[in-house]
Amino acid sequence: MRLTVLPLAAIGIMLAQPALAQAPAGRIETAAKLRDAALAGNKAYGLLAHLTDTVGQRLAGTEAEARGRAWAKAQMAQLGLVNIREEAFPLTMWERGQARATIVGSNHSLAVAALGTSGATPAAGITAPVACFANLAAFRAAPDAAVKGRIVFIDHRMSVTQDGSSYGVNGAVRRAGPALGAQKGAAAVLIRSLGTDHHRNPHTGSTSFPAGVTPIPALALALPDAELLARRCTAGPVQMQLLSTPTSRPGQSANVTAEIPGTVPGEVVVLGGHLDSWDLGQGVFDDGAGVAISLAAAATIKAHVDATGQRPRRTIRVVLWGAEEFGLIGGRAYAAAHKDEQIVLAGESDAGADRIFQIDSRVAEAGLPLFAEMAGVLAPLGIDAAPTNKAGGGPDVGPLAATGVGVIDLSQDMTRYFDVHHTPDDTLDKVDRAQLDQNVAAWAAAMWLAATDDRPLRTK
Amino acid sequence: MRLTVLPLAAIGIMLAQPALAQAPAGRIETAAKLRDAALAGNKAYGLLAHLTDTVGQRLAGTEAEARGRAWAKAQMAQLGLVNIREEAFPLTMWERGQARATIVGSNHSLAVAALGTSGATPAAGITAPVACFANLAAFRAAPDAAVKGRIVFIDHRMSVTQDGSSYGVNGAVRRAGPALGAQKGAAAVLIRSLGTDHHRNPHTGSTSFPAGVTPIPALALALPDAELLARRCTAGPVQMQLLSTPTSRPGQSANVTAEIPGTVPGEVVVLGGHLDSWDLGQGVFDDGAGVAISLAAAATIKAHVDATGQRPRRTIRVVLWGAEEFGLIGGRAYAAAHKDEQIVLAGESDAGADRIFQIDSRVAEAGLPLFAEMAGVLAPLGIDAAPTNKAGGGPDVGPLAATGVGVIDLSQDMTRYFDVHHTPDDTLDKVDRAQLDQNVAAWAAAMWLAATDDRPLRTK
Repeated sequence: MRLTVLPLAAIGIMLAQPALAQAPAGRIETAAKLRDAALAGNKAYGLLAHLTDTVGQRLAGTEAEARGRAWAKAQMAQLGLVNIREEAFPLTMWERGQARATIVGSNHSLAVAALGTSGATPAAGITAPVACFANLAAFRAAPDAAVKGRIVFIDHRMSVTQDGSSYGVNGAVRRAGPALGAQKGAAAVLIRSLGTDHHRNPHTGSTSFPAGVTPIPALALALPDAELLARRCTAGPVQMQLLSTPTSRPGQSANVTAEIPGTVPGEVVVLGGHLDSWDLGQGVFDDGAGVAISLAAAATIKAHVDATGQRPRRTIRVVLWGAEEFGLIGGRAYAAAHKDEQIVLAGESDAGADRIFQIDSRVAEAGLPLFAEMAGVLAPLGIDAAPTNKAGGGPDVGPLAATGVGVIDLSQDMTRYFDVHHTPDDTLDKVDRAQLDQNVAAWAAAMWLAATDDRPLRTK
Repeated sequence: MRLTVLPLAAIGIMLAQPALAQAPAGRIETAAKLRDAALAGNKAYGLLAHLTDTVGQRLAGTEAEARGRAWAKAQMAQLGLVNIREEAFPLTMWERGQARATIVGSNHSLAVAALGTSGATPAAGITAPVACFANLAAFRAAPDAAVKGRIVFIDHRMSVTQDGSSYGVNGAVRRAGPALGAQKGAAAVLIRSLGTDHHRNPHTGSTSFPAGVTPIPALALALPDAELLARRCTAGPVQMQLLSTPTSRPGQSANVTAEIPGTVPGEVVVLGGHLDSWDLGQGVFDDGAGVAISLAAAATIKAHVDATGQRPRRTIRVVLWGAEEFGLIGGRAYAAAHKDEQIVLAGESDAGADRIFQIDSRVAEAGLPLFAEMAGVLAPLGIDAAPTNKAGGGPDVGPLAATGVGVIDLSQDMTRYFDVHHTPDDTLDKVDRAQLDQNVAAWAAAMWLAATDDRPLRTK
């Protein structure tokens, strides 16, 4: 599927309006120029295609993720970024092995994917009756006796939301459902995928088990398969044969960073994405796109610096986090390692490759006029100001925000994000170049404004 | 994805128009009543869900296909159809085994599916350089030396067409490409799937090898994977490791038939679909829908016969063909076995579950007024008359038409048919009930008109 939600012609019309006629000269005009330069063509699509075609998926802790880091460092050097660093951290790796789920007495082989950190069945699999629940609340309310020794199926569903909020609202089924099953004595837990498509591609993702709770097998069903199983449950008792053979072991990952140095040492603005991906697809929407957008935005700024000699006041740092998918391990490690640094603002692009529709902040009150400037420059891109000043930042920015770093949200349209998120379908063909380029234009302009400003942004 | 292309409200508005005010009384008014009764609710969706949920896929010659026949006979009996028969025929069965394709030196595991009748690799697979061709013509033009010992990839693509004609135009890549590869000495042939979606679900389907040509491995790539491979081919030499382990053996299938007897013995009108399906999905669009539409249309007519005592002049026969996917084996067997019978008209529903948009015929000139009557009754369903009188009939009707049987085409909208055709995605959730019901309404009305008529229809 290829969608062109924001036609270039429409952008052209918007840009032709004298929107910036009253803006002060200098840095704001430069930001508008960076925006227009990025929109006219930038490196994001080429970088994204090169990363995902030559490296492919980049499961955290694997050799593939390491190749992703080598790729990133080579690109950073080629783009003229400096202070290129790899900052290692340990993690517990998890690899899925085989998975198979069949309804006993039928020829239905269900499309399933094991959830990250979930446990294994015996090598011969298990056969057990299925206990079906419409949602997590119904499962929570069930007596242990209705669950013990059974394969639990939770048909909890999410909806399509432009801001992706349904993933937050309904995410507990994946995060907490399997642990609840383990505590209630279930043999395994199957969930309806946290996804909004109807293809035979299950949505993987991490779950977690509290200390002292032994992980049990936990898998997601593709939506057509979840709906089939729900119908079979309604029709009568269902027995299932289930095999899942994931393994865990200690491993290592790293964050990769590079800079455009500022003229005043000390203050840093961060933009980035995460380099690791799930293993089923090729990590394009999640989050090769964020990696490519961040690098291309930095390259847009670097080209301006090289051409004019104008340098930003604050250092602009690209951070490509590792091991996001296994629980923000790279993001936490980064925040801990840099807690004494003067990082004043951070943003992450980690919601696909579709257009940005909104800007928001979480900064010191004195910094709000900077965001008003940004909103003015981004408005011709079809980006609304949504000034709650309660922005979350991307997942890997969360730990930085907790240490007082200011946050910028450039919120992407996630209407179709959860069609491909964490599935085999996360592949290059889903990318709409015009929308990808709009992201680069917005990030380049916003980060230039933040880096050439001196207003305080940190919240503590 | 659930689409409602033809809203019920819109049908309601169309039906409210006095379209039939000038129609002659009697059989045409009854046809309109059958149409409206079916549109208000019929058994198709329930039958389709029951077949595909309880039996699932029905690969020709397998136990699953036999269970499909048992299911069909039970449903026919329950609907009050009579003369329920199973007519067996032999076939060469083909089952796919395992398939795996990886790009050497990458972590790309490509989504592939073996093509029906294709050969196997050695159990350890093969590793060979890939020879890439943009289309079948380029492959045909290539010297044998450029192909010998290589894994050939043909990136031939089809387009979206409402009438499905792109499948015919471009089908040769699948039908003839592998045999051409075998003749040129290729180690294997991979084709871009004959499909119009961009999901990681390859489209299987039959290929064929002429007598004396030993089948070689032949597989279809999902479109995202075909596009990845094409990009890798452009970037430089590609080596591939390929495994495919299909097997063939003699087997048996059968056609299943049942009737609403006419008052005048001898003349028969046939409607049907095919019971077998490919094994990757659940055989919903292809062709559980045709089975359900045919049975539900017959049930609609049977309910009228029972309620009024009015019987058709000609016998209405539902034929559910077997082994269509392996080359119309059931259709050919049926035509041969019934060549001496007075089958005057036949039609097949085998293009999914979306709405009918056109009616056409291939009948004796004297029969054309019947089709004008049908067009009048079907017009309120949004069905256009397209009087070429060169209709093809469905695939299994082709062999009947060759013996002189008249043909009716009720052409379905195939815009999204090749998104799911022959893939794992051929599942119940793709069905739009309003459109499915429109099919039943059209077939019930058309077959009633044909069966209550006495004009000659056979072409020889």
